[in-house]
Amino acid sequence: MDQDCAGDPECPGLLPEPTAAELRLEAVLHALADPIRLRIVAELAGAGGGERNCLAFELPVTKSTLTHHFRVLREAGLIRQHRRGTSKMNTLRAADLAARFPGLLDAVLDAAESCFETSKPAAR
Amino acid sequence: MDQDCAGDPECPGLLPEPTAAELRLEAVLHALADPIRLRIVAELAGAGGGERNCLAFELPVTKSTLTHHFRVLREAGLIRQHRRGTSKMNTLRAADLAARFPGLLDAVLDAAESCFETSKPAAR
Repeated sequence: MDQDCAGDPECPGLLPEPTAAELRLEAVLHALADPIRLRIVAELAGAGGGERNCLAFELPVTKSTLTHHFRVLREAGLIRQHRRGTSKMNTLRAADLAARFPGLLDAVLDAAESCFETSKPAAR
Repeated sequence: MDQDCAGDPECPGLLPEPTAAELRLEAVLHALADPIRLRIVAELAGAGGGERNCLAFELPVTKSTLTHHFRVLREAGLIRQHRRGTSKMNTLRAADLAARFPGLLDAVLDAAESCFETSKPAAR
């Protein structure tokens, strides 16, 4: 995996994002307060820190809507995006979030998992 | 304190609210994704489970805006409201939230506390 952009603000392919110190709780909670975005975050968390192409998410929304959701997540600091050719690759900023808001992402992911299980028994 | 309405859906003064089983993660996160609502929740948590009159919150918003925020919190299931005379009394539904989404409220409150400290050193 080409993750040499991670954490390097000078990387030419890296899309604009807040620094770890700039993460705002309201923005993080707002970004998570949507079922599609929550699912993206849960899938990235399930990928164990690996990166995923935007197109690799099978979600019931149009491409432009999905692009919007990824941007909200990136601007809130939940995910990092960098361009590779014509694709955008995504990683969860789990370490930055854990450092800034300890326990928050894990609690949300645990809650999301129980919700997904309730609403979609065969979701994962 | 007159808390005999707590948890009793038949109580005439109790305002409509979701049951514990009806709590939705997205609604809870959306309700928390606002600095005024976060402050209300933090103040109620700081009150140790006690009830507080809507008018007892000193927040930089108009009364009608405050009423809106309380309604969002109640409809998301974060707070319980019941009328007493011309007042509305508020309690945090900490136990319901902890049962449905373990660790979530605590993580958000911890994060909020660190944010309040950063932005307003003398806030509490």
